[in-house]
Amino acid sequence: MLKFDEEKQRNGINGALALRDRINEVADRICEEGYRNICWLGIGGTYASCMQTLVHMNEFTEIDTFVENAAEYCATGNRRIGKGSIVIISSVTGSTEEMVRGVEKAQEAGAKVFGFIDVETAALAQMVDYEIAYPANEQLKFFMAADRFMFNKREFPEYNRFYEEMDAHLASALIEAEKEADEFGREFAKKHKDDAIHYFVGAGNQWGAAYSYAMCYWEEQHWIRTKSIHAAEFFHGMLEIVERDTPVTVFVGEDSQRELAERVAKFLPRICGNYTVIDTKDYALTGFSEEFRGYISHLVMRAVTQRIDVYIEQLNCHPMEIRRYYRRLDY
Amino acid sequence: MLKFDEEKQRNGINGALALRDRINEVADRICEEGYRNICWLGIGGTYASCMQTLVHMNEFTEIDTFVENAAEYCATGNRRIGKGSIVIISSVTGSTEEMVRGVEKAQEAGAKVFGFIDVETAALAQMVDYEIAYPANEQLKFFMAADRFMFNKREFPEYNRFYEEMDAHLASALIEAEKEADEFGREFAKKHKDDAIHYFVGAGNQWGAAYSYAMCYWEEQHWIRTKSIHAAEFFHGMLEIVERDTPVTVFVGEDSQRELAERVAKFLPRICGNYTVIDTKDYALTGFSEEFRGYISHLVMRAVTQRIDVYIEQLNCHPMEIRRYYRRLDY
Repeated sequence: MLKFDEEKQRNGINGALALRDRINEVADRICEEGYRNICWLGIGGTYASCMQTLVHMNEFTEIDTFVENAAEYCATGNRRIGKGSIVIISSVTGSTEEMVRGVEKAQEAGAKVFGFIDVETAALAQMVDYEIAYPANEQLKFFMAADRFMFNKREFPEYNRFYEEMDAHLASALIEAEKEADEFGREFAKKHKDDAIHYFVGAGNQWGAAYSYAMCYWEEQHWIRTKSIHAAEFFHGMLEIVERDTPVTVFVGEDSQRELAERVAKFLPRICGNYTVIDTKDYALTGFSEEFRGYISHLVMRAVTQRIDVYIEQLNCHPMEIRRYYRRLDY
Repeated sequence: MLKFDEEKQRNGINGALALRDRINEVADRICEEGYRNICWLGIGGTYASCMQTLVHMNEFTEIDTFVENAAEYCATGNRRIGKGSIVIISSVTGSTEEMVRGVEKAQEAGAKVFGFIDVETAALAQMVDYEIAYPANEQLKFFMAADRFMFNKREFPEYNRFYEEMDAHLASALIEAEKEADEFGREFAKKHKDDAIHYFVGAGNQWGAAYSYAMCYWEEQHWIRTKSIHAAEFFHGMLEIVERDTPVTVFVGEDSQRELAERVAKFLPRICGNYTVIDTKDYALTGFSEEFRGYISHLVMRAVTQRIDVYIEQLNCHPMEIRRYYRRLDY
């Protein structure tokens, strides 16, 4: 399989899952000391992961928790971030300008910052109050933290059962999903590599997936135009520009908002002949109970879209690591 | 001027401003009785207005206040909406399916609903706990409510001075803005009526403006493709697909997030030869103090974009009231 290193994938995921003890140590300490609210602070791709975590928590929790965009926070502020606030962040480089300023501002306001900064020596890693350094797997880290906070509040009683399945089966389930998706990924890439624009629709944890896949992969890395739209909003405007040949892909997950994406998926065939439905239900996820499949739907979708990416990269002769402007120009 | 009825505009705005006593009566009663949090519940265009109200409040308030999308709320729920919650909504038709179900759900959870339902006899108008019926001017109604809640909490001390200026000058300021924008609107429409896709960028209260203008006007009413992107997010992916001929319009307002939009506006000339900056600062807004201009930036932008709309409608021979699918098909 093109650009697929099973061993590396497995170790990456299992290594992230193994952070759980350290995450719990931090979360348990915070819970013991008490906190007022939890802010998920991000920008770009990490902002999308924040949104995914929030929609997961919204299902279960009464914790006062919200998402902030780092640049917006720097400009407008947010008086709910202050003493007693826990700000949770993630950063690959640890140097994103808006994040550095956002963390400074939050700490000045009295908040404590819990950071997953991949590079232990980076600026952000030095600044945060609690730091756990491990590469990639951002959503997994966020969800592990969120689930622990909810578990400690007795809002997520399935915690132990769920993480038993995660530890035992997640790596294999995602690796198998990639294998199952490979042929689809190749065909999809062939069909859509020249699209003038491609629409991605999602809801629940698939909204962050659609948002970041469209923006951080197709736009940023493949230089293909996209629009992402929440399935809830699709019927309130965007539907009118969908015609026979409009390329639309619906991400259908298995969390609480599955029905919203299904509604779009059921409607599209009536007005469009160029749509695709990617449904996480089609993937085996061996070892996972029915009730837990929704919690990892966004990870399954990423396994699938990864297979699309490698083929678009190859077919379009466009290495995914090049950028036209990002960090190439000052702005 | 094409499709411009000054008298009607003036009466519409002044009539909306005159609702303030009734809005305050409701808000003051709620504040007296006490409340736990305020949820702005919307979908589509009203969701955008909710986001505009929230970003305005975030500047000033410690009130626990948040935005919910009605369809997402119906699917996922939100345990923070319950006894002590005030849910604020607006609806033109009073029959939008997701809103009706959302209001039912919130009330079942123990929340009180404060509705601006244009049609007093509509389903939603009958359901809400507090109802004020008056056509259009949704953002104005939301901001009047928000400002009163903040004033009552001593977080918006400029309330009286601000609304003196609003009552005295808003209608004229917006009418004059439309006149000032007319020639620009015609030229913009001529230049962009055939765009394959048009990008709209905004921040602060201009984010909701860009989001809803792109989706509810260009997509829904002109059937032209768009993507809206928050200025904070522009630099985290989307920038890579902007080239010389990409049509990009930046909405620059005068609220706390002006700097975020300015950053995009300053960057674009380096990489794009087909961009437009619409800056509310270019409009006189006679009678308004400098400090208050930002609070009405989104209304000024709507005055400007209204002039674009009438010319696109005329040039494209596409009446804005027709829909291909919305409320024409069951879905």
